[in-house]
Amino acid sequence: MTKPTHDETIGAWLDALGSAAPAPGGGAAAAMSTAMGAALVAMVANLTIGRQSYAEHHPHVTRVRDEADELRTRAVELVAQDAEAFDALMATFRLPKVTDADKAARATAIRAATVRATEVSIDIAAAAARVVGLAESLLGRSNPSVVSDIAVAAASAVAGLESAGVNADINLRSLRDVDVKTRLTAEVERHRLQVSAGRSVVDAVRKEIGA
Amino acid sequence: MTKPTHDETIGAWLDALGSAAPAPGGGAAAAMSTAMGAALVAMVANLTIGRQSYAEHHPHVTRVRDEADELRTRAVELVAQDAEAFDALMATFRLPKVTDADKAARATAIRAATVRATEVSIDIAAAAARVVGLAESLLGRSNPSVVSDIAVAAASAVAGLESAGVNADINLRSLRDVDVKTRLTAEVERHRLQVSAGRSVVDAVRKEIGA
Repeated sequence: MTKPTHDETIGAWLDALGSAAPAPGGGAAAAMSTAMGAALVAMVANLTIGRQSYAEHHPHVTRVRDEADELRTRAVELVAQDAEAFDALMATFRLPKVTDADKAARATAIRAATVRATEVSIDIAAAAARVVGLAESLLGRSNPSVVSDIAVAAASAVAGLESAGVNADINLRSLRDVDVKTRLTAEVERHRLQVSAGRSVVDAVRKEIGA
Repeated sequence: MTKPTHDETIGAWLDALGSAAPAPGGGAAAAMSTAMGAALVAMVANLTIGRQSYAEHHPHVTRVRDEADELRTRAVELVAQDAEAFDALMATFRLPKVTDADKAARATAIRAATVRATEVSIDIAAAAARVVGLAESLLGRSNPSVVSDIAVAAASAVAGLESAGVNADINLRSLRDVDVKTRLTAEVERHRLQVSAGRSVVDAVRKEIGA
């Protein structure tokens, strides 16, 4: 894709996602789920800020909206960063491996590109985990007529978080440097703790609806 | 939005999702999560069909790919249908309620529009549940180098399913007709059973990765 993700049409993007082309793939989907979750947090916030009857919640909800807008922008940027990191990683596998010097240089390049790809997945997971937290913070502090959208925001962010987590897992598997691997694994696991928080948001909304 | 969803840019669509405008909202996000899941199922299938080493799986995987392509098209159509059903429901609330005849006609119109909005959410849930089943059927029968994308497909479809389920719940809450309510509730619950299947797909992939 030559266009920035922001300017791509939904149809063309989904076509590319479904094709055998290496990117966009699971990383792009993780970032997009996160962006949708952030957008829905902002929607619930905007429909609360616009109503005088929820004035007591406006200071909190305005902060939530602003952070959700930043996270959405960030998530869309991460779609492109994920594709770049993936392409860069694929390019390292095509490096020459004739001489011992070639092999050493190739191994170093693969390692660096794998770390970079993992870091992008962790950035997506971090953004998704934060969206879960924002959705949670809207429970009982926002316009109840859009309470179901808090659940959809949380469910989307959980998908982004779980997806980014699996993408990080598969890159971490091939890393041999124990220190780096331990540090990155700990980061992924820290964000992944928010999966259960996100599921609890969905459950809380269903309970409030009486479902 | 005047453009078909397919032709909308990702940036404009996310802007609309995050705005205080009533649609697109949670229903559109549910359908988009489902479409992303279907696209990733197709991607895994396409990257399996293209490799002779998985020839034994080609008949199954070709069927999966074709059904995933249909489900993706259907999910994108459901984004628009959800917006139409939502707008139609909102319009019924603005019907006159001066005379008793007005009130009776308005109540009938609200009921019909609520049933229709619920049916669209159930259609999204049905498509998402089917995507979960397709993702599950690819485990052990597809190119292992894209196994993580099966997990992302399942996580996206679960988000679509849970989101559509909550959207159905909130509409079902206001329905008074016990027979219709019972029938539609049973349909939602039947699809929702696939949530745990989808989560199991993510767990199975993580186990295979060794995470």
